[in-house]
Amino acid sequence: MRPFLHPKREEITLSGVLHALADPVRRAMFRRLAAHGPDSCIACAPPALPKSTLSHHVRVLREAGLVRSEKRSTEVSNTARLDDIEARFPGLIAVILGCKD
Amino acid sequence: MRPFLHPKREEITLSGVLHALADPVRRAMFRRLAAHGPDSCIACAPPALPKSTLSHHVRVLREAGLVRSEKRSTEVSNTARLDDIEARFPGLIAVILGCKD
Repeated sequence: MRPFLHPKREEITLSGVLHALADPVRRAMFRRLAAHGPDSCIACAPPALPKSTLSHHVRVLREAGLVRSEKRSTEVSNTARLDDIEARFPGLIAVILGCKD
Repeated sequence: MRPFLHPKREEITLSGVLHALADPVRRAMFRRLAAHGPDSCIACAPPALPKSTLSHHVRVLREAGLVRSEKRSTEVSNTARLDDIEARFPGLIAVILGCKD
């Protein structure tokens, strides 16, 4: 497995964050991660989501700077980068996650 | 010219709004409309943007419920639907437009 690539805090863009969170499945995944803390890919995904789709969504979240992924033995643990996003775009995540879908 | 179709306030979705504003050109156009009031398509676009690209961006903003378009003699006037968006998603537009790009 190649190492995961994460943008540095200062490389996180508003366009990337909005694009990533525009998708309702990714938004639900990120909401769970933000609310419940570090979690495995599997646990933070909607039930019955194909593994390839899940990987795609996690990758988009990771490349946008919203999620940090770490390999832990046989699975991948994902953490919401709340501090980084808050530092870049104050208030943004709270407002988006506070909106009714 | 066919009449413009606008989603009703209650039909405006968070996904549509985030998708529309994820694009930096559309975000800049919407920022100008929100700050300077009703404006023509031409006046709210970045210089040198092809007319077809402009029309596409305005359509995405309109279909997301961010902009109301009205034909005025020979041109189209676009207005930011700030009240509708604020009613649907309180605080969202202020936070997004307040973020540094």
